[in-house]
Order: sequence, then structure tokens, then C-alpha cells
Amino acid sequence: MGPRKTTTRARLITTAAELFRRQGYAQTGVNQIIQEANATSGSFYHFFPAKEDLLLAVVDHIAEVFEAEIFGPAAARSDDPISEIFTILDLYRRQLDDEGPTFGSPLVSFSAEISENHPQVRARLAEVFSSWTARIEHLVQTTDKRLPPTLDRAAVAQLVVCAMEGAALGARLNHSLAPFDATVSQLKTFFGLLEDREEPARMMTAPGRTVSATAPRAVDWRSW
Amino acid sequence: MGPRKTTTRARLITTAAELFRRQGYAQTGVNQIIQEANATSGSFYHFFPAKEDLLLAVVDHIAEVFEAEIFGPAAARSDDPISEIFTILDLYRRQLDDEGPTFGSPLVSFSAEISENHPQVRARLAEVFSSWTARIEHLVQTTDKRLPPTLDRAAVAQLVVCAMEGAALGARLNHSLAPFDATVSQLKTFFGLLEDREEPARMMTAPGRTVSATAPRAVDWRSW
Repeated sequence: MGPRKTTTRARLITTAAELFRRQGYAQTGVNQIIQEANATSGSFYHFFPAKEDLLLAVVDHIAEVFEAEIFGPAAARSDDPISEIFTILDLYRRQLDDEGPTFGSPLVSFSAEISENHPQVRARLAEVFSSWTARIEHLVQTTDKRLPPTLDRAAVAQLVVCAMEGAALGARLNHSLAPFDATVSQLKTFFGLLEDREEPARMMTAPGRTVSATAPRAVDWRSW
Repeated sequence: MGPRKTTTRARLITTAAELFRRQGYAQTGVNQIIQEANATSGSFYHFFPAKEDLLLAVVDHIAEVFEAEIFGPAAARSDDPISEIFTILDLYRRQLDDEGPTFGSPLVSFSAEISENHPQVRARLAEVFSSWTARIEHLVQTTDKRLPPTLDRAAVAQLVVCAMEGAALGARLNHSLAPFDATVSQLKTFFGLLEDREEPARMMTAPGRTVSATAPRAVDWRSW
């Protein structure tokens, strides 16, 4: 495959990603994609025999963008698993901020279109959801003894991903990042409290230590 | 307006709600709605001069269903604000379970269709989001001294609503309630820890009391 063909294919995908996200899959005609991507219908159907093939490529593309712009950089920047989780959320926020209110996660954007007519797309979106959850779960697992031993780490990862996606939806609906920021602030409160819960266990290694009645609280949940 | 007209209008709305949710707004033709609602195109356009008018009525209808089947019963059953929040989540779960995997919140279902072409619908969905958040925030406020005084109660409410919506999305994508259940379990962990944080404040009213090195933890975050 020559570079020109690769470029046309990539242009069709990025154009479609933008149009699907902004106006929905069903409302976006193939002709509009071809025109805005400056392509031809011959090249379109060469790469994507059916419109659904393009939708699958768009989902893959957005998952790659998330990897390249969110998960990858967060891993590179963080040597602490909990701060890596919040770097992911921060980089996601920047995407929402940069791309404007119509930016949305592929999960949210296409959820209404994953009808029984598009089982392959639904399956692919579920895979993306699982890969994100697995990634966060790995980080929560890596925290080792910082979090309570009985904590259901897989469930915490699901909360983080669901809250993140719901917050992206809230930002989109409200044309404001306020719901996203509030959600992240309380996830920080949650992790702060979880870490703080180890306090009694640490105290157990220092028997006889007492808690001063006037001691300040160990964690201020407003200023992570 | 006679009873027959009311019935036709209601039937058009509930039929459209089901079709929009299952296959998306754009993919649902007016003719399909008219046929499945056993109506006529005359009655359709009498009630809904434009398809978007029907979409707005559907959003209102779903908000009413949430009020009648989730928020109202939760308030009637609970005399404790935190358990009311979890009753809301439980009743929401039952909706997801009863109506099957394609059931979704109006916020999630229509998020992809709230393009610049439907500013009125986006505004209405944002209102629904705000009303839910206000409702949860009121409950969190009502907890009074059970939660830390510095806690940002409005932000906690946003987390609950965003997590709930993200979890409904996760359930729909995965055709499984597991993401919803995991999310709710960790919201319970969060509230349990928040309540437990009052412990030091209560201890301050009993000066001289010490923490036993072998005392069990006050909250088991697995078994709310």
C-alpha cells in the first residue's frame, strides 16, 4: 500500500471520527465524509466496503488516540500508580477542553447507535471499555499495600472508568467541564480516604500509640 | 382533549422512546413510529409538528418515568438520606435489568444526537442532568454531620450521577450489569469511608480515649 492510499484512508477515518462524534453515525452520510475528506467514492468503497467497516475503523482510531495521547503519556510521566490514574483523568480533561464540548469518548458517542443492527461495533466498544478498565485495574493492583488489603481493586477500576465516562457525558451535555472536575475531585477524595485507611494498620505496628484528641486529620479531602 | 387523543399521544411517545433508545433517533423514521404506535400520520403531525418535538416529549417522558419509578419510590421508602441514594441506584439497576441491555438513560441514549442541530434537546438533557444532581446533592446535604464538614457535597453529588450514568453505559456496552454493580459497590465504600471519617471528630468529644492497637476497623468496605 503506497503512502497516498494510506493518507486517504487515514483522512477518511479522522474526518468520519469528527463527524460521527459531532452529529452521530446515522446522521452522517457517506457523501459528506467523502467530500470533507477530499476523497472519491471509489477510494471510500475500496477501503470500506460498508459504512459499518468505517465505524469499526473509527472506534479503533479513537482507541489509538486515547493510547497515544492519554494512557501512553500518563504512564511515561508517572512513577506512582495512583498519580498515574489521575494523570490519565487530567489528560482526558485536556482532550475535552481542546476539542470542545462535542468531544466525547467513543463509548459515549456511539452508545445510542450500538443497536442490534451493529453487534460487531458494540462488541468492539465493549473491548475498549474492558481494556481501559484492565489498565486502571492494573494500576490499582500495583498500589500494593497503600490501599486496604480487602479492597475490591477490580471494582474500584470499574468505578473510575464509569465515573470518567459519565463525567465526559456530563461535560458534553452541560457544555462545561464542571461535572468532570467535580467527579475527579471526589475520586481523589476516595483514593485519599482509601490510603488513609491504612493508618490503623500502621498504628498496629506501634502498639501503645494513642490518637491525640486535638491531632489534625491525616488527610484533607479538599486538597489532594 | 378527549381520552382517545391523549392515548394516541402517549402511545406515540412510549413507542418512540423505545425505538430511539434501541436504534437511535436518526435511524428511527417517523413512519416506523406511526406504524408501531398504531397511529396515523395526521395524528402524529397534530401532536408533533416536527420530529424534534417528539424527541423533546420523549426526554420529558423518560424524566417522568425516572421520577415515578426511581426517585419517587426511593424517597418514599427511605428515611435515611444515604440509604435513599443507594435505593435510587438499586431501582435504576432494576430498570436496566427489567428492560434489558438496550435500556439506557436518556442522557446516554441521546448524547450522540445532541449535535448543534438539536440545541433545544441538549439544553433539556442538561436540565435533566442538573435536576438529578440537585436531587442527590440535597440528600448529601441532608446527611448533616454524618459526613465530614469540609466535604464538597455538590461535587459528591456530581460523582454519584456521573458514575451512575457511566455505569449504565458500561452495562449497555457489555450486556451485563457487572460494571454497574462494581461501581455501586465502590460508591458504598466511598460513603462508608466518608462516614467513618467522622470518627476522629466524635473521639474529640471523649478526650483521653485511645485507639486500641487490636481494635477491628470500624467499617468493612466490602459489606455495606
